[in-house]
Amino acid sequence: MGKGITSREEDYSKWYNELVIGADLAENSGVRGCMVIKPYGYAIWENMKAELDRMFKETGHSNAYFPLFVPKSLFEAEEKNAEGFAKECAVVTHHRLINDPDNEGKLIVDPNAKLTEELIVRPTSEAIIWNTYKNWIQSYRDLPILINQWANVVRWEMRTRLFLRTAEFLWQEGHTAHATKQEALDETQQMVEVYAKFVEEFMAVPVIQGRKTESERFAGAEDTLCIEALMQDGKALQAGTSHFLGQNFADAFDVKFVNKEGKPELVWATSWGVSTRLMGALIMSHSDDQGLVLPPKLAPIQVIIVPIYKGEDQLITIVEKIQPIIDKLKAAGIRVKLDDDDQKKPGWKFAEHELKGVPIRLAVGNRDLQNSTVELARRDTQTKESVALDGLEDLIARLLEEIQTNLFDKALKFREEKTTKVDTFDEFQQVIEGKGGFVLAHWDGTAETEDKIKELTKATIRCIPFNNEQEEGKCVYTGKPSSQRVIFAKAY
Amino acid sequence: MGKGITSREEDYSKWYNELVIGADLAENSGVRGCMVIKPYGYAIWENMKAELDRMFKETGHSNAYFPLFVPKSLFEAEEKNAEGFAKECAVVTHHRLINDPDNEGKLIVDPNAKLTEELIVRPTSEAIIWNTYKNWIQSYRDLPILINQWANVVRWEMRTRLFLRTAEFLWQEGHTAHATKQEALDETQQMVEVYAKFVEEFMAVPVIQGRKTESERFAGAEDTLCIEALMQDGKALQAGTSHFLGQNFADAFDVKFVNKEGKPELVWATSWGVSTRLMGALIMSHSDDQGLVLPPKLAPIQVIIVPIYKGEDQLITIVEKIQPIIDKLKAAGIRVKLDDDDQKKPGWKFAEHELKGVPIRLAVGNRDLQNSTVELARRDTQTKESVALDGLEDLIARLLEEIQTNLFDKALKFREEKTTKVDTFDEFQQVIEGKGGFVLAHWDGTAETEDKIKELTKATIRCIPFNNEQEEGKCVYTGKPSSQRVIFAKAY
Repeated sequence: MGKGITSREEDYSKWYNELVIGADLAENSGVRGCMVIKPYGYAIWENMKAELDRMFKETGHSNAYFPLFVPKSLFEAEEKNAEGFAKECAVVTHHRLINDPDNEGKLIVDPNAKLTEELIVRPTSEAIIWNTYKNWIQSYRDLPILINQWANVVRWEMRTRLFLRTAEFLWQEGHTAHATKQEALDETQQMVEVYAKFVEEFMAVPVIQGRKTESERFAGAEDTLCIEALMQDGKALQAGTSHFLGQNFADAFDVKFVNKEGKPELVWATSWGVSTRLMGALIMSHSDDQGLVLPPKLAPIQVIIVPIYKGEDQLITIVEKIQPIIDKLKAAGIRVKLDDDDQKKPGWKFAEHELKGVPIRLAVGNRDLQNSTVELARRDTQTKESVALDGLEDLIARLLEEIQTNLFDKALKFREEKTTKVDTFDEFQQVIEGKGGFVLAHWDGTAETEDKIKELTKATIRCIPFNNEQEEGKCVYTGKPSSQRVIFAKAY
Repeated sequence: MGKGITSREEDYSKWYNELVIGADLAENSGVRGCMVIKPYGYAIWENMKAELDRMFKETGHSNAYFPLFVPKSLFEAEEKNAEGFAKECAVVTHHRLINDPDNEGKLIVDPNAKLTEELIVRPTSEAIIWNTYKNWIQSYRDLPILINQWANVVRWEMRTRLFLRTAEFLWQEGHTAHATKQEALDETQQMVEVYAKFVEEFMAVPVIQGRKTESERFAGAEDTLCIEALMQDGKALQAGTSHFLGQNFADAFDVKFVNKEGKPELVWATSWGVSTRLMGALIMSHSDDQGLVLPPKLAPIQVIIVPIYKGEDQLITIVEKIQPIIDKLKAAGIRVKLDDDDQKKPGWKFAEHELKGVPIRLAVGNRDLQNSTVELARRDTQTKESVALDGLEDLIARLLEEIQTNLFDKALKFREEKTTKVDTFDEFQQVIEGKGGFVLAHWDGTAETEDKIKELTKATIRCIPFNNEQEEGKCVYTGKPSSQRVIFAKAY
């Protein structure tokens, strides 16, 4: 019944692309590297946004909106940040088009409409925001500032993949300002925990929380905390980051406050973000060769009902009998849809909803109804059973929770199986090349070794987990002493 | 108690700017013409978005997301649309910055990173969307497509004003595709009605629904429907537009479908949008010299509670007694906040919440509580009364509705008073220059007369109202025969 997408085994990358297209999540657009997020994909993103937004507000943050453009002089103010993004940014240089005198109906850039200062399409908003905060902060009474922004950003990536790496993507970026270092550190920690909670509870994707090495830090940060997930092909995916920015941006934009003692001090900063990349993590964590598998908490449609009928009369009878169930499900807050499209056969619909990852499917025929039963199919286990109409709404509510838990458990079990401790570099290379997954290995703590390992194996240090077990050992590459294992993996 | 903003009488435009800044709604940014929407302003916008989004979904629309950039070749495909926006668009020409060899720490545009085709930052998305729809539509079964997008757009306006006209603004743009002309016409009509309902019911701003004249149409549209509101200074504000695009975009992008008879036909289109400009309409419809006045349905805080106390003990007693009321109000879905900031005096808080337009203020002192009363102040009428604690939540629920209705009625009465029928051009000029408001006058139906009147008086035809009374008359300017009055006004 599969709609013929390539299997993961055959070609994982092709499977991913075909699934994203086939399940109507997104597609490439007429603009290099930019995607169109289709209604079904966007509905999942909307559910993700709604939960994240609630969590941000519960932790005291408000939303605001800052300009899309960053004037070059502001962009370059924090040098490390600028250096990190200068290589891949879209630059606006003109503000007008005129008719092409040599080509009727065509337009050219008006050379007389050159901007006096170029504008960078934001790849991230620290610069424009700290240039704004400067005017908002005078005294310790103005702090903290706890703001989040939902926005689009542009990074001119050369190789793009739907959701995972696109030139334009949607994200949220939190930007907070604090009077003390400790408060900023606490905020950085709090937000990585919010991300972990969201990804685990709603996306059903287990993550490891930890700290990036210096070389993997956000450009301009003093510390980057992250959550790392493992995909089914054994590659890691960084699912969210929370940065302690120290006083770097306050220094670059001269943002000072007068403390309680009446003395000026530089403000402490954090920033944190997750993006439509999470869609990629969601897809790759649970889906199978039949298509998308969605955790119920984020599924735009949690229950799809497919009537099995011959002729309009039968359809009417079925709809009449099933309508009270639909009403009860809706009243219980369950997102249910009746697929009464008369143009499509049940088999086509089964495959379609399977491809789109709807958690529960009910097939309802006349004979079922005579027996007061329906056929219930679970997308996660691909099992089917005949269940009684009586009490169906309770069963479904319970099953949706069970599916949510099952997906998480399955992903966790997979990650555990794909996590390997290695003690020699031979073993390291073998696991990275073969089994894949997270590799726990000792590292001597130097950027040189990190680089060398990356060069040789394409594996990077995903993070140094919080509360990491301390253990005497030797660096897997240099043999130098090390006090803990870090997590290596090839990554998206 | 006013926080000293300029009065409307003294300088309306200055009043508006001071109010927007003073009420913490928005401010100008470091980027020419682009604003920062501050948390309080954004919270109002979020409430507007939530209601509009619900209404769009109830009428069968789904959200999606299309690229920020439009390649020049797509931008110019629909010639009238391109011509309408070419003069004021931001153009991306390069994708990289490099270190300035002559200026350490500075960046310059990398001349080697010139794009082969320039990208226009979307001023509106018809072009990019119809280039996408082309691939989604083959058969009549693929229609209708009913999509909305929440996005930022850029129009390089020379003179900008917070919310009313900014180079970047936030909006929603609906883009629908239909198999028949009638269906597209119905959609165009439906959406202008949705806008009218939203603006009247939630913003408490009365609007006139009607049709734009040919010269005032959206570039590329065959018909533009609109809602027009009247501001307190007697100027009109176009609050939303819904366009019947005919087959213009289908033609430009070659979007055809096979109809039921197996024949290819061009697809019919609509687009419709409202933007952060609505914030300007909201502000200018209700506010007064003390600041913002918000309709309860959109107010981020509907009830503010200010404790009047000396010393921490009194504060604790007050909070204890008022907490059950707060809980009841919250349980009733009322957005209530206790302002227990110990750094500010009650008088300062009164002025602050007045400036921010909070509909109801409760002042709670120890003596009030002994009498089981609180002082309740209405922002709209600026009246105060002592009310019983007992049953307070019901009173407040009722008052919030009353305030919502009162604001609408007041604005409607104002509009009626400021609507004048005129029959001579002298009178026309006098009213436009003096009293202002909507002027109902006969017009001969030609663009020449419309232009001439605009040139002489700065008044434009806001719309030809739906179901307009038919009445024999003579054009106020040329004396030629006319069958109906149209609405003229100076406009934002």
